[in-house]
Amino acid sequence: MCQACNERSAQHLTREGESRRGFLTAGAAALAAPLTIPALSGAAHAQDAPSALAESRVQSWAAFDTSGSFAPHTIPRRAAGPKDMVVEILYSSICHSDIHTYKGDWGMPQFPLVPGHEMVGRVTGVGSEVTKFREGDYAGVGTMVDSCGTCANCLADREQNCLNGTTFTYNSADKLSGGVTYGGYSRKIVVKEDFALRIPPGVDLAGFAPLLCAGITTFSPINHWDLRPGQRYGVIGMGGLGRLAVKLAAAKGAEVVVFTTSEDKLEDAKTFGAAEAYLWSDEDAMRRQRGSFDLMLSTVPVAYPMQPFLNLLKLDKTLVNVGALFPVEGAHGMMMGFGRQSLAGSMTGGIAETQAVIDFAAHHGIAASYEMIAPEQIGAACQKVVNKEARYRYVIDMTQA
Amino acid sequence: MCQACNERSAQHLTREGESRRGFLTAGAAALAAPLTIPALSGAAHAQDAPSALAESRVQSWAAFDTSGSFAPHTIPRRAAGPKDMVVEILYSSICHSDIHTYKGDWGMPQFPLVPGHEMVGRVTGVGSEVTKFREGDYAGVGTMVDSCGTCANCLADREQNCLNGTTFTYNSADKLSGGVTYGGYSRKIVVKEDFALRIPPGVDLAGFAPLLCAGITTFSPINHWDLRPGQRYGVIGMGGLGRLAVKLAAAKGAEVVVFTTSEDKLEDAKTFGAAEAYLWSDEDAMRRQRGSFDLMLSTVPVAYPMQPFLNLLKLDKTLVNVGALFPVEGAHGMMMGFGRQSLAGSMTGGIAETQAVIDFAAHHGIAASYEMIAPEQIGAACQKVVNKEARYRYVIDMTQA
Repeated sequence: MCQACNERSAQHLTREGESRRGFLTAGAAALAAPLTIPALSGAAHAQDAPSALAESRVQSWAAFDTSGSFAPHTIPRRAAGPKDMVVEILYSSICHSDIHTYKGDWGMPQFPLVPGHEMVGRVTGVGSEVTKFREGDYAGVGTMVDSCGTCANCLADREQNCLNGTTFTYNSADKLSGGVTYGGYSRKIVVKEDFALRIPPGVDLAGFAPLLCAGITTFSPINHWDLRPGQRYGVIGMGGLGRLAVKLAAAKGAEVVVFTTSEDKLEDAKTFGAAEAYLWSDEDAMRRQRGSFDLMLSTVPVAYPMQPFLNLLKLDKTLVNVGALFPVEGAHGMMMGFGRQSLAGSMTGGIAETQAVIDFAAHHGIAASYEMIAPEQIGAACQKVVNKEARYRYVIDMTQA
Repeated sequence: MCQACNERSAQHLTREGESRRGFLTAGAAALAAPLTIPALSGAAHAQDAPSALAESRVQSWAAFDTSGSFAPHTIPRRAAGPKDMVVEILYSSICHSDIHTYKGDWGMPQFPLVPGHEMVGRVTGVGSEVTKFREGDYAGVGTMVDSCGTCANCLADREQNCLNGTTFTYNSADKLSGGVTYGGYSRKIVVKEDFALRIPPGVDLAGFAPLLCAGITTFSPINHWDLRPGQRYGVIGMGGLGRLAVKLAAAKGAEVVVFTTSEDKLEDAKTFGAAEAYLWSDEDAMRRQRGSFDLMLSTVPVAYPMQPFLNLLKLDKTLVNVGALFPVEGAHGMMMGFGRQSLAGSMTGGIAETQAVIDFAAHHGIAASYEMIAPEQIGAACQKVVNKEARYRYVIDMTQA
């Protein structure tokens, strides 16, 4: 690789927090000035071994039915095209969505199902037109791997709402390869570079995997509803989402208060940065908190009566539900009306915003707390998540595969 | 009354749309300059006949049980204090809340119940410290008649959320007189001037009565969520709230689309200013409207599945429920999350905002469409509202009492 390319790549990599569109536009402008800046196409990647980009068959761990047992399974990965990159997956974490999916809670999935949309790995091959990554970089893949890139929502950095249909990372119709997409419970993934995230080389790679879904899911609401330093922020539920929600909001300077059903998580909450933590059953605490929150986030993965928490909001404020992706329970029109409170939904975030949470976490030294497991332990770990026995996010060490 | 006071009153009355607090502050500043401006206290009202302010017994129409039959009933009205005014009620309209209340839908009321929180009348007496009104003015009374005036919510013009307890216009503990408050289905009310609204003398007084609840209830959301000219605004339900919602939003320049269950209201909707109107059962229309609304307002007075309407919102937008003051039905966490849509509650508005809708309506020549009835017809009219047979708001002509 030439010196100019090296310098240019380094310059790109420092542009953390910039929107993906801005980034690409800047790249396009540079490419439009071939007389002053060396063209990137191909030159930076001349040494890619053809075999790294070739179609391949990859070891994965799949569910074959709704029982929650996982077994090794070989899946195809397409040949990497000019704008694709190949990522050797190092760490892949278990999101509650994976469990809802194999259990059929959101409709029957296509089996064999290879879940996983929180993965971090090493770039082992880049297509000839890839500009953001070089072989050896670390990259993450989150909840989606493709969208049209041209519709109004994609242009607004909302690829998850692509009007022509987002391709989600697993159990989604695969427009490029046909069939269905396979996720991160596997050794390798081929992905468009537009859907890969830059992972800074010096971070805890395993602890960054959960940022790809749980991180963006809990970061997006505090951005969108503009949580400010000093504001009171309630986090309901202290699972994989809740723990990251606390860390991210505390780093934003908010006064975070946790509501959990597990007594043993009260101290954890404070370790993660919460100012206060209470049990849902603590009626006195619930009464004292009425009308005190600027924003609340519900991370609980099942439906439950929400009005007691809506009552804790200040006038005109919002409770954002990111966990219970089921019919809303126990919200009351009159009580919400009286204080003009809102119940909002939110789900994942766009690619630019996902990059932003990674950069924010790196800047603030935040990563998910996790427990490392081997691929053979996936089924047992999922069961512990369901039983609320998981203390931290389970990260699958794919290097053990 | 001296010339100076006359001029000063006229100046006050032109301050339409100004916040109540701003108004009162300006008044207080004037009073603090006694050397240049004559003191108002007492002087303007020296001619008030003592009998107009005296405690009295007043003819009203009351429900004595949940059956919905009304009968004449005599109620006490307190003597007007220095900051009170006496209003001879001319027109009082029937709000669906009145019906929910006597039916016990929101808990059993205190019988005999005299409903009515949309009334317009003539000022027949003013206390010695009243500054905004003179005898002979027209005044309105809405959903509340008292609050502490000193808490954070009152100071923020949110008297309906008074932290020390709002006194609602009927069926509310009456802190001033003891017992319970009695509403506008009566010949006379005594009210603090801070809770009386200025009604311009040249408007359709009967058509302005519904502005005191239905008007502010439908106006407040378009203010708070900042509906702009040209934006698409969906109004669900075309009853008393829905009709005013259409008129007010159309006057704001919005592109209003009505969803009704009554075929005979489709044309009415367009008469009131809607650009389009559809039946809920029109699946094709519902499909075409998906993702097209900047704001929606649900005015339906009963619970119903809301997700089909939430689906019609653009990304990040809000459906405001002002009608179904019951447990929320049929909203779905995943579907709301996917487009980051919100379901908000809203209920009435503060005094300053109520004055604003009156001034807005007067400016734009808007009034509620109504059908005048005699007090003896209250029970039958309520039944027609329940049966969805009411074409327009029922306004009780209290002058026939």
